[in-house]
Amino acid sequence: MMNRALLAILPLGFAVVFTACAAVQPTDSLPSWSEGETKTAITRFVTNVTTEGSPDFVPSAQRIAAFDNDGTLWAEQPVVQFEFLAYQIKKMSGQHPEWKTQQPYKAVLEGDQEYLINDITNNHGKGLHELVLAAHAGMTLQEFNEAVREFFNTEQHPKFKQMYNRTAYQPMLELLAYLRTNGFKTYLSSGGGVDLMRVIATDTYGIVPENVIGTFAIDSFEQVDGEWKIVKGAKNMFLHDALTKPVGINLRIGRIPIFVGGNVRTGGDIGQLTYSQTNELPNFQLLINHDDEVREFAYAEPDNASLDAAESGGWHVVSMKNDWLRIFSFEESKQSE
Amino acid sequence: MMNRALLAILPLGFAVVFTACAAVQPTDSLPSWSEGETKTAITRFVTNVTTEGSPDFVPSAQRIAAFDNDGTLWAEQPVVQFEFLAYQIKKMSGQHPEWKTQQPYKAVLEGDQEYLINDITNNHGKGLHELVLAAHAGMTLQEFNEAVREFFNTEQHPKFKQMYNRTAYQPMLELLAYLRTNGFKTYLSSGGGVDLMRVIATDTYGIVPENVIGTFAIDSFEQVDGEWKIVKGAKNMFLHDALTKPVGINLRIGRIPIFVGGNVRTGGDIGQLTYSQTNELPNFQLLINHDDEVREFAYAEPDNASLDAAESGGWHVVSMKNDWLRIFSFEESKQSE
Repeated sequence: MMNRALLAILPLGFAVVFTACAAVQPTDSLPSWSEGETKTAITRFVTNVTTEGSPDFVPSAQRIAAFDNDGTLWAEQPVVQFEFLAYQIKKMSGQHPEWKTQQPYKAVLEGDQEYLINDITNNHGKGLHELVLAAHAGMTLQEFNEAVREFFNTEQHPKFKQMYNRTAYQPMLELLAYLRTNGFKTYLSSGGGVDLMRVIATDTYGIVPENVIGTFAIDSFEQVDGEWKIVKGAKNMFLHDALTKPVGINLRIGRIPIFVGGNVRTGGDIGQLTYSQTNELPNFQLLINHDDEVREFAYAEPDNASLDAAESGGWHVVSMKNDWLRIFSFEESKQSE
Repeated sequence: MMNRALLAILPLGFAVVFTACAAVQPTDSLPSWSEGETKTAITRFVTNVTTEGSPDFVPSAQRIAAFDNDGTLWAEQPVVQFEFLAYQIKKMSGQHPEWKTQQPYKAVLEGDQEYLINDITNNHGKGLHELVLAAHAGMTLQEFNEAVREFFNTEQHPKFKQMYNRTAYQPMLELLAYLRTNGFKTYLSSGGGVDLMRVIATDTYGIVPENVIGTFAIDSFEQVDGEWKIVKGAKNMFLHDALTKPVGINLRIGRIPIFVGGNVRTGGDIGQLTYSQTNELPNFQLLINHDDEVREFAYAEPDNASLDAAESGGWHVVSMKNDWLRIFSFEESKQSE
């Protein structure tokens, strides 16, 4: 009797299971992206490279994605790296009254970020190098990491009144997670210092320390008070920006990313977006355009180089205003149209 | 009848399955290692860090292992990196008759590897830098990779009469695979050039390009015949050796490995073995001692620094003669005692 009863309910059991499966809707992995060309292009690319048998299939080991940070994954007005540098320099400025009138310190103390951006773009970051030497060199890595944590736990974004790591763009967090779910390794490829970004990359972006690429100088390994430590240096500074981004990526990864994201401001991401196009595998370029002065900021590039490169390269340009239903997690979502 | 028959054979089916399971012996992941202290220490460490609830448990993301290459994962008599350099320099020497009498070229052309090892250990690798500049700088990365492939497909090890990548140590290949099976990420941390090692690391060791750490110089990204390419440079050469190994590892990984392997010869691995001991997580140091002149080579360090450091640091020393039943895959295994 029991066996018969068991057998009798089996088909019903199967029916329940099948109904449950049929009722599951495909989940939207990118809910903060408006339906439209950009979102469709992203999901089509990811579907193609992950579908075995597709002519565009890419094995998981070669699914490498790299993203600029400032202006691509979080807000860059102001640049957080410079804010941290200012935070450190201000702490030390009591002992350096001459800094009030002496560049590059004066610019930092006065919050003149354009000075530093110009220094990087047009002067090989020589001022930045001097600041890094003054502010960080000689600290142990542990001391530096503590200072970074203190900064992120203390300082707020001046416009949004949020901790800096909360200014990460919600649509990009979704994109990073979506790529990882689809077997991509996600990398940061930032002009910011590699050690700074590592402190917050995992919690903010889900990006592990070994996948953070950025500006670096040569540290040392030495005994400090009898214990072996990594000590921050300033020698041979490698500024990971513009045409050195492909160099830094190759140094660190040794393969060309198939998905690269950057943004419009100084032309600093043209190099790495171009680099990804030299890959023989299918590849995708995403360029963020800051055109939403209400929810974030609206700014353009004086010479329009990034958008021109996008046009000729067939890159996908994100209009923050139109492509993103929500920019920050602390903000309510617009309705999808 | 059918249902009853089906039910009747079920217990038998289960019995077969259980019998099969009981018959499976635990597989030996390290069959080329003699039973003994070193092998036991390795398997105990790996079991402890992978057992949830164990006081020594380490989450998978932090299970990072790094290995020196020359003399640790494959033979270093001669050093393969220098053989490749000689291969390139010889190709070019017809146009440089002066190299026959001029250092460091003379040393390379005459196969005087001690000259280069001394150059690295005592002269910051200045001679090596000049050779790299002459032999590789200005080549595109593709051209360089082709040259590396040609070398590995052409040249043989002088003693073993095997292609160089066949001189990988079988016990270490087993160890690498065993660590990966247990959730470790395995890295090369080699004094050799990062680009050279990347060409063969995956096929030889199962180590992916992004996990190869080595000596590097700063390349450039430029247009060559109208196409964007990475071009090999020689500026700001970072020699990944001795006390700079911890620096290079931190630059690349940003976390301290919990398992590090190196070998006795110049003291070049003391730095990274010491570094792994600064980890707050459980950690393991393996030091290969070359004491088998029959199957490989027997050589020691003039000042005995590595073995002294092993003694005071509690590192695990591998006697190639006693701990390894087989050194190379092309060699028959000794019987375990």
